[in-house]
Amino acid sequence: MTDETTIRDLIARRAAAITAKDADGVLATEAADVVIAGLAPPLRYAGPAADTRHQMEAWFATWRGPIDYEIRDLQIVSSDTVAFCIGFVRIGGTKTDGEKNELWARQTLCLQKLGGVWKVVHDHHSVPFYMDGSLRAAIDLKPN
Amino acid sequence: MTDETTIRDLIARRAAAITAKDADGVLATEAADVVIAGLAPPLRYAGPAADTRHQMEAWFATWRGPIDYEIRDLQIVSSDTVAFCIGFVRIGGTKTDGEKNELWARQTLCLQKLGGVWKVVHDHHSVPFYMDGSLRAAIDLKPN
Repeated sequence: MTDETTIRDLIARRAAAITAKDADGVLATEAADVVIAGLAPPLRYAGPAADTRHQMEAWFATWRGPIDYEIRDLQIVSSDTVAFCIGFVRIGGTKTDGEKNELWARQTLCLQKLGGVWKVVHDHHSVPFYMDGSLRAAIDLKPN
Repeated sequence: MTDETTIRDLIARRAAAITAKDADGVLATEAADVVIAGLAPPLRYAGPAADTRHQMEAWFATWRGPIDYEIRDLQIVSSDTVAFCIGFVRIGGTKTDGEKNELWARQTLCLQKLGGVWKVVHDHHSVPFYMDGSLRAAIDLKPN
């Protein structure tokens, strides 16, 4: 497999693990010191994996059933040891209180080949916010 | 210069150009088809450079005088053709209506060596938002 094919497969497996709320499956795609910049505070958090697992499981627990997690327009730029991927991700489902919600975010994934294996070392996904008095997160945008 | 030194210098020049509201200086550090995921909607926008310049100049015009633009904790991971940088950025100053403001964002920059020259091909900077009823952008966070 080319590096790009390997990385595309890794990201697909990561997305499937998120849908299934399988923390072990997600962690298997990440370096131990992965740095995550997510939708909720803090600005970012980093490994060790125990902390990442704790954050992830707390987030998984806010959803009833599987999480819709669809990646769209994934572009991969890769050398033999360093790669990045940009795209959009749709995150949706039913929260534990029964409320359905869905949003689109932009996502940047950074990878390194470590010990011969590609790993996600940084995951940055976010939405912008409205620069009016509300400062509300723009959770109603779609990829154009 | 090593690739890392070259990239660090490029990012410092880019930051200085933003502070000076020098659109030509910023565009000189970017590939023509750069993809920007910024603080304000849309989810992201892309080159050609004319569009990027328009977005940038509109943002510059909202500030009175120079823009504080401080990058902190910059980590650079580079191969010979592909690199990414993660860090924090403090953006502040005085808006045209006289209001002072400042926030910290997390920033991911992705670069490629194109025609022998490193260029920024993707800039993703964002803040998270509060997962309470407010959905307010978390503009009061600091790097820990």
